[in-house]
Amino acid sequence: MIAIKDKYSKVRKRSEDICSTLEKEDYVVQPIVDVSPPKWHLGHTSWFFETFILVCYVEDYSSFNPSYHFVFNSYYESLGARVIRTNRGNLSRPTVDEVYEYRRHVDVAMDKLLSQPVSEELHALIILGLNHEEQHQELLATDIKYILGHNPLFPTYEEILNPIAVDTATNEFITVKDSMHNIGYDGNGFCFDNELGRHKVFLPAFKIAKNLVTNGEYLSFIKDDGYKKHEYWHAEGLDWVKNNNIDAPLYWHWIADQWYSYGTAGIQPLKMDQPVAHVSYYEASAFAAWKGMRLPTEFEWEAMCNQFPWGDRWEWTGSAYLPYPGYVRAAGAIGEYNGKFMVNQMVLRGASIVTPPEHSRPSYRNFFHPHLRWQYTGIRLARTVNTDDL
Amino acid sequence: MIAIKDKYSKVRKRSEDICSTLEKEDYVVQPIVDVSPPKWHLGHTSWFFETFILVCYVEDYSSFNPSYHFVFNSYYESLGARVIRTNRGNLSRPTVDEVYEYRRHVDVAMDKLLSQPVSEELHALIILGLNHEEQHQELLATDIKYILGHNPLFPTYEEILNPIAVDTATNEFITVKDSMHNIGYDGNGFCFDNELGRHKVFLPAFKIAKNLVTNGEYLSFIKDDGYKKHEYWHAEGLDWVKNNNIDAPLYWHWIADQWYSYGTAGIQPLKMDQPVAHVSYYEASAFAAWKGMRLPTEFEWEAMCNQFPWGDRWEWTGSAYLPYPGYVRAAGAIGEYNGKFMVNQMVLRGASIVTPPEHSRPSYRNFFHPHLRWQYTGIRLARTVNTDDL
Amino acid sequence: MIAIKDKYSKVRKRSEDICSTLEKEDYVVQPIVDVSPPKWHLGHTSWFFETFILVCYVEDYSSFNPSYHFVFNSYYESLGARVIRTNRGNLSRPTVDEVYEYRRHVDVAMDKLLSQPVSEELHALIILGLNHEEQHQELLATDIKYILGHNPLFPTYEEILNPIAVDTATNEFITVKDSMHNIGYDGNGFCFDNELGRHKVFLPAFKIAKNLVTNGEYLSFIKDDGYKKHEYWHAEGLDWVKNNNIDAPLYWHWIADQWYSYGTAGIQPLKMDQPVAHVSYYEASAFAAWKGMRLPTEFEWEAMCNQFPWGDRWEWTGSAYLPYPGYVRAAGAIGEYNGKFMVNQMVLRGASIVTPPEHSRPSYRNFFHPHLRWQYTGIRLARTVNTDDL
Amino acid sequence: MIAIKDKYSKVRKRSEDICSTLEKEDYVVQPIVDVSPPKWHLGHTSWFFETFILVCYVEDYSSFNPSYHFVFNSYYESLGARVIRTNRGNLSRPTVDEVYEYRRHVDVAMDKLLSQPVSEELHALIILGLNHEEQHQELLATDIKYILGHNPLFPTYEEILNPIAVDTATNEFITVKDSMHNIGYDGNGFCFDNELGRHKVFLPAFKIAKNLVTNGEYLSFIKDDGYKKHEYWHAEGLDWVKNNNIDAPLYWHWIADQWYSYGTAGIQPLKMDQPVAHVSYYEASAFAAWKGMRLPTEFEWEAMCNQFPWGDRWEWTGSAYLPYPGYVRAAGAIGEYNGKFMVNQMVLRGASIVTPPEHSRPSYRNFFHPHLRWQYTGIRLARTVNTDDL
Repeated sequence: MIAIKDKYSKVRKRSEDICSTLEKEDYVVQPIVDVSPPKWHLGHTSWFFETFILVCYVEDYSSFNPSYHFVFNSYYESLGARVIRTNRGNLSRPTVDEVYEYRRHVDVAMDKLLSQPVSEELHALIILGLNHEEQHQELLATDIKYILGHNPLFPTYEEILNPIAVDTATNEFITVKDSMHNIGYDGNGFCFDNELGRHKVFLPAFKIAKNLVTNGEYLSFIKDDGYKKHEYWHAEGLDWVKNNNIDAPLYWHWIADQWYSYGTAGIQPLKMDQPVAHVSYYEASAFAAWKGMRLPTEFEWEAMCNQFPWGDRWEWTGSAYLPYPGYVRAAGAIGEYNGKFMVNQMVLRGASIVTPPEHSRPSYRNFFHPHLRWQYTGIRLARTVNTDDL
Repeated sequence: MIAIKDKYSKVRKRSEDICSTLEKEDYVVQPIVDVSPPKWHLGHTSWFFETFILVCYVEDYSSFNPSYHFVFNSYYESLGARVIRTNRGNLSRPTVDEVYEYRRHVDVAMDKLLSQPVSEELHALIILGLNHEEQHQELLATDIKYILGHNPLFPTYEEILNPIAVDTATNEFITVKDSMHNIGYDGNGFCFDNELGRHKVFLPAFKIAKNLVTNGEYLSFIKDDGYKKHEYWHAEGLDWVKNNNIDAPLYWHWIADQWYSYGTAGIQPLKMDQPVAHVSYYEASAFAAWKGMRLPTEFEWEAMCNQFPWGDRWEWTGSAYLPYPGYVRAAGAIGEYNGKFMVNQMVLRGASIVTPPEHSRPSYRNFFHPHLRWQYTGIRLARTVNTDDL
Repeated sequence: MIAIKDKYSKVRKRSEDICSTLEKEDYVVQPIVDVSPPKWHLGHTSWFFETFILVCYVEDYSSFNPSYHFVFNSYYESLGARVIRTNRGNLSRPTVDEVYEYRRHVDVAMDKLLSQPVSEELHALIILGLNHEEQHQELLATDIKYILGHNPLFPTYEEILNPIAVDTATNEFITVKDSMHNIGYDGNGFCFDNELGRHKVFLPAFKIAKNLVTNGEYLSFIKDDGYKKHEYWHAEGLDWVKNNNIDAPLYWHWIADQWYSYGTAGIQPLKMDQPVAHVSYYEASAFAAWKGMRLPTEFEWEAMCNQFPWGDRWEWTGSAYLPYPGYVRAAGAIGEYNGKFMVNQMVLRGASIVTPPEHSRPSYRNFFHPHLRWQYTGIRLARTVNTDDL
Repeated sequence: MIAIKDKYSKVRKRSEDICSTLEKEDYVVQPIVDVSPPKWHLGHTSWFFETFILVCYVEDYSSFNPSYHFVFNSYYESLGARVIRTNRGNLSRPTVDEVYEYRRHVDVAMDKLLSQPVSEELHALIILGLNHEEQHQELLATDIKYILGHNPLFPTYEEILNPIAVDTATNEFITVKDSMHNIGYDGNGFCFDNELGRHKVFLPAFKIAKNLVTNGEYLSFIKDDGYKKHEYWHAEGLDWVKNNNIDAPLYWHWIADQWYSYGTAGIQPLKMDQPVAHVSYYEASAFAAWKGMRLPTEFEWEAMCNQFPWGDRWEWTGSAYLPYPGYVRAAGAIGEYNGKFMVNQMVLRGASIVTPPEHSRPSYRNFFHPHLRWQYTGIRLARTVNTDDL
């Protein structure tokens, strides 16, 4: 039980560490619907443990505040009414201090629960809760960046970042012949239900890049008027570009004839050799088309990811987010975790510089709508090759 | 100069007093476009003194932070770009502490300026700035109520309120014969430019109520299905009712077969003899029609207001907000204060329980769009009478 | 009875004459919500006679098609469900031929009814129906212009127009001293209920232009960048200009370095000495401010209109559309004619080149939302003067 | 050349036959953005031949009307400005007669061109143009149904329908073991570029239904409150249901305690044994989940479609519309045909009762956004099976 108790407290602490240099005001705002207030993340992840574990497994558990159930439910229809997502940024209460008190309350109860032997079922739920919290840590990092990066004062801030492995290698491709692969999680550890149902996939011959596309390479696309050349874009992508006056990745600023980007150090000159980040699927796809290539499928990525470095950027794939063969939604509220989102979103593979350590694996499937780009989303190139040419 | 210096510090202090029991988080949010974050009000009123007075009248004045000009400009086109109104609630920075520092910075400079002799022109500007700040004090009070009253935790709070003069008199009307009246400000003190241009208005005979409509009277309208009887409503009012599922004034809640309303003490049973508040023009007008009467015009109100008690509720009138004959917009940014809003809004007369003392007068013209009701808006009845019957 | 029978058939015929050169397709479309399909106007005006007269006064009247009640009700809540206004252009059926058959059906029944003695009450209803139809004739003319003028083929068409009385006189003003006037309808003929309640109004001294503003004068405003100078605009007007990229009156086109306008003859070079038409209240008001003047109030207009030519353009006034003192909504569906629109609209006075002959009078009050300009709306200037200067 | 000339005239005639019983008014309206006016389809398909063939291959070709290029371009960015899609229903001109004249003009020129020897390249373009027109014939049929089926008069109409093969067989499933399949077009005839790039796909064992889901089966889902059980729905599907008050397939009406549906014969009692039609992907997917199954992938469908009857309903698959490996967009305007729509849409396979004869094939890929249902969209069930159980 030591292991799970330690893991619990380590993961929980990390969420608070991410927020440790924030001002109270930073915890409150929600500038766009996709970005939740940091205090909401802190409360919601605690609510998850309270709702799915403490209420069910601790006989005399006393809720910190029954109204929080309404405030911190994210999207679980099975669990009743909730504050609608667009309104999270309208709530000044509970205060940040109260949310931290709430975390203490939950942590004390969990600590007590974990001091006793834990059933396999409960263990699985806790691990799910911790993985859930790690997902929110990633969102915390990107939401904080969005909140501060869209403030006209462009404040600097601290962030728990993994180091970026900028690879100096030239733009090499790995060539893969026609071949059969096993896709999906295959281990004894934790994974989400959308990774299950390991199954065979046949992949026609292809090439996949060893490195991610850099800021410098993406800049060439911009300079070639890539945002204006309709032939590289999806029709809906072009509409998105026009309606939102998009002409560069998020956080890029053109100031006094030079490109800058916003990050923890505030506004800084763009680093050309870093992997490009904060692009939408539409942009990633248009860039690839401009290069005469395409994005890899999620299967190509998973099959080959042991042969190239990854983990700096969430990488857009050309695969829509759909269930694997034999996917079954779990019963009850836990079943609302993944399956109900399997439409109109694209799969991302890998991990990013704000992904918690040990939270990524080759079979991990992330997913976002194609226009979103507040995550550290990047681009890896691929293309189909003629088998006869190999 | 003592007088103006004292008045300055007294008014400025009052803004901060209104916020004195808020949590930091309460200062930040903007649940609807009309409700600004309290810290924005505190910053904007300081910006007003900085921009219109300190920058112009203090030779070596050094701005607290030049970016604040962009953050705290409300709507002055003459003064350049600004944060758009709908985005005020997305700004976590400047922090509440920084905004208070900003106030200190401005106050110190103003204090120094006011320690010397003050020209008439400068005096007038300061008085304008203080009246401007008092208007924002009223908004501060109602915006705080909105922020807390729409929080699912319904927190209690403190507020600087004037006492409500509940009048026990029966529902008497004052009768006025055909008569000529002088309308508009007529004194030596301060008034806004929309009150100027004192002019004669002829009023056909009418009756005007001595008292405001009470919660109890308004409840009768609800019980009679008033919200569903189209014959009492403007077409746009009925659309507003249907699209927003309106069935009672703002802050009224129907809980367990009883009406409650939200206020400083949290959710409390509705007090029937208090004047109704937080109704839109559409509701005020429909209620009056249901009573077989109408709202008074702003001229009827001003002509007779010395004969009935007022000051608890801003009172909707049946007059559209339009310029008086001979109204001229002032040159420059100051000219954007009133004139550009003279379309699509209705006039309110009187004052409310959160109006600062000495901030009201018979000629004062407030104005809002007809669907708004987060102010303490109430109803006084009137009707036209046949002269021959008098 | 001859008189009313003749008037009936004359007015009814005029509606069809207006449409006589249309293609069937022109009868069907609704390019914006304010513009109804011509066949809808033809059906709705017949429905008015059927619903308010034939159904009530003809014992054995048999409806042409009961479903038409749903199709051709415009906005009468008292009369049940209806096709919502935005959907009128989605209805291909009833066909144009069927609508004309419907008119024949109604006309035959009316003809029979009018061959017998008619009570005073019925007579009044018929006159109301005919005035209602004349209002729709004006809309028919402007809606047809909108439909064809927004077609990329810019077809020519014929229209029943009154001649424009272009006045060559110089820009003279009539001066009026402080004076009392009687406002509202004062006769034995027909008027709408919003003109009733004749009452005294005191008018401070003012000047009012004898002539309307011309295209040439309005062009000077454009050339002086009037659309970009915020100081002349209402805040909501400026938003409207920006959001809709407005830079000239409706139907003006800048082609190959020259201004053209669209009319019955298609696209033609702009005639500088004609009165400007198709401007919104916002534009009219901004133009007046740019000239250092204002629009006349509806009372100033009515008081003086016997001293200047009018009838070419509906003239925006600076008066909001509000009830006269003592205005009472009629009971039943007829009561929905005017009162429920008395908010958020501005009054227009006069008449336009497409107003049916004998349909205008000094007390006539038209009204539109301030952004609308598909009517022949124009500008007359006025200003307040200091009595002492007279 | 006879063959292509005959085929041309046969296909072109069919478009006009579909419209032969329409009233002129039916040709004009566009009740929702997805439904184009019939006259627009007739013009656009002619514009396709004019733009891609006559202008390029006939030296002295004289355009019928150069403005039509602007009016009838659908979405080709390469070809310049165009009437935006939402405005098609606002165009009363060109008239229906003029559109038919335009067709004559194009047909005469094509006839002349086809009387001479035709190059392979030209032949391919003509075949593309005819397939394009056949696609629009399908849309013509469904758009006409939408226009008339949403008219409050519910008119009857004639339509060129293929007979429905109602299969009386019981609900049998075909079982398929783990197996490799070739997917994509493999012949010498015509296909669209999205079918090309024939490639191997490995399919894990599955079962697929021989018959389509019937109205009767779908009704059971409704009776079991299927539209309210969130566990069967995608989150975006549930939002769509709630926001649009969806409780049955399109064209179903609940009248006097009985279900009816609208079709060529007007409103008729629902036929229980007919395949359900006019459901969205969300509904199809929720129904399958309620049955404990799923929709087939497009690969499962293509691999097995020679073993079950199809052609009555377009069948939603569980596959997102994405390019096949090695898909390359053609250069120029022709390249805008398919690739730019490959995001946010789901694949449909099969054909429907309004698909032109010979226009379908096993590799044909249709695609729509998941909320759309004005096509004859139906449901076939499938499920993954455990290989070991076989």
